Amino acid sequence: MSAPTARAVYPEHLREQVEAYLADLRFAEEPAAQGLEEAMRYSLLAGGKRIRPVLALATAKALGKDPSSILPLAAALELIHTYSLIHDDLPAMDDDDLRRGRPTCHVKFGEDVAILAGDGLYAEAFKLVLHAQPGDPANLLKAVCELASATGVNGMVGGQYIDVQALVPQGAATLRRLHELKTGRLIGASVECVLLLMEGSDEGSRLPQFRHFAAELGVLFQIVDDILDVTGTDDALGKPRGSDERHGKVTYVTQYGLDGAREMAAESHRNARAALAQAAPGGAAELEQITDFIATRTS
Amino acid sequence: MSAPTARAVYPEHLREQVEAYLADLRFAEEPAAQGLEEAMRYSLLAGGKRIRPVLALATAKALGKDPSSILPLAAALELIHTYSLIHDDLPAMDDDDLRRGRPTCHVKFGEDVAILAGDGLYAEAFKLVLHAQPGDPANLLKAVCELASATGVNGMVGGQYIDVQALVPQGAATLRRLHELKTGRLIGASVECVLLLMEGSDEGSRLPQFRHFAAELGVLFQIVDDILDVTGTDDALGKPRGSDERHGKVTYVTQYGLDGAREMAAESHRNARAALAQAAPGGAAELEQITDFIATRTS
Repeated sequence: MSAPTARAVYPEHLREQVEAYLADLRFAEEPAAQGLEEAMRYSLLAGGKRIRPVLALATAKALGKDPSSILPLAAALELIHTYSLIHDDLPAMDDDDLRRGRPTCHVKFGEDVAILAGDGLYAEAFKLVLHAQPGDPANLLKAVCELASATGVNGMVGGQYIDVQALVPQGAATLRRLHELKTGRLIGASVECVLLLMEGSDEGSRLPQFRHFAAELGVLFQIVDDILDVTGTDDALGKPRGSDERHGKVTYVTQYGLDGAREMAAESHRNARAALAQAAPGGAAELEQITDFIATRTS
Repeated sequence: MSAPTARAVYPEHLREQVEAYLADLRFAEEPAAQGLEEAMRYSLLAGGKRIRPVLALATAKALGKDPSSILPLAAALELIHTYSLIHDDLPAMDDDDLRRGRPTCHVKFGEDVAILAGDGLYAEAFKLVLHAQPGDPANLLKAVCELASATGVNGMVGGQYIDVQALVPQGAATLRRLHELKTGRLIGASVECVLLLMEGSDEGSRLPQFRHFAAELGVLFQIVDDILDVTGTDDALGKPRGSDERHGKVTYVTQYGLDGAREMAAESHRNARAALAQAAPGGAAELEQITDFIATRTS
């Protein structure tokens, strides 16, 4: 992993596009459901790096396309990520009171509203892509199918299940698999969906190369996440440090120690950059920046 | 409403097709996520009339198509309905312990697993349609968009929000609207999605006529639901009667009295049959049966 002093440049111009698009989104037509929209927007607009949608825009750029042409798909990724955070934070799950320095959705609006805000964000994510994302219908179907797949039982939800059930036996393979499902699949889908939308999956598509990069990026993201839970500051994380340890979770750090995890992160960082160089031989400045950012982030 | 003695015939042959298809569904590829699949299938395979998928198959038949050609879409409707029941039953929502005579999902598997089982069913519903439902890609996109729309903030989730917030002021219009969102939109979508898939929404499609029928059917369903919560037996309902009253809910019965609600159901039944006659002038035996069944059901 790069030294923490060598902080990576983040493609802020893409983040700003995402942020503006998200801020403009409205969901509830019914006046009586405005309170639900309020809870959804409270969590959606809590800031953050918007890694998933920025990754999607950067992928479009690497393919030589206009990033703004996939803003609905990119925004949907953030809606889905927000939904997963709201449900993960619930008392019955990780029971976290703070998220990005603010009370979590259920603390602020009640548990019932938080469950529904998550449910609503997930539904509106699909509606947004299906309603507002231009593209070839057959390719769009493939992209949305990947979105559902990456967030279902063999993706995000399945990973969260394994996590809360603490069914993780010792061993690198299973640990890696848990995080591939819980976090990696959606990080990966942020790249893959754009490929599917813009190039389909037929011969000539660069999907396999980008898929390799995306998978490695998901792993890198999770290793760094585990390291930050131990080394980060409460302020930077926006939540109390050491949450994993308190929940008795098996992480890359509990498994390999801090130094071991750092070595794995460095290796994963190199692998991701190598995979990216193969996927985009002509260079992909923003994707390189995001990769370096994920490796060196402090929150 | 027809006299309770004149019980309607239900298109059991369609229900059996749905049941067999649902029983064959598997979700988890990962061994460690099998417990999540178990919870999903526990709730999914708890029986019931399968009104939404049967409605979808009957609509296909009314359009002169092979009902079995839309089984993935039909099954997705039941996955979504099951997800909504699991989340509605949670302690933070309606806090119900019994459903169809069995412990609810969170009583049997724990609250965390129940939340994830609902989330998982919703994701897998989208994946099922997008992955397995044949059809013209542009029409399929429209159908899935309606599915997301009918179950989002301006549909099922929004209706449930208004319901748990008890934001219902007095008045027929708002009461009707709440139930249109919470229950009616998905009942309606069971008809509309099939039209969108098979005929699109262009000129010449019978979508408007069927949409009118579907909306009225949703209203009829809810009025009868409210009546049954007062007049049904615990055994037939599979849960304690009077749940609405205990939760202080405004229903058609609290609003108009039992006789008033029965008159409204009778009128809604007539309207639905009239709308169906306009949509399918050549007759639609199974849709007529389902309409009569919904009007006269006892559970």
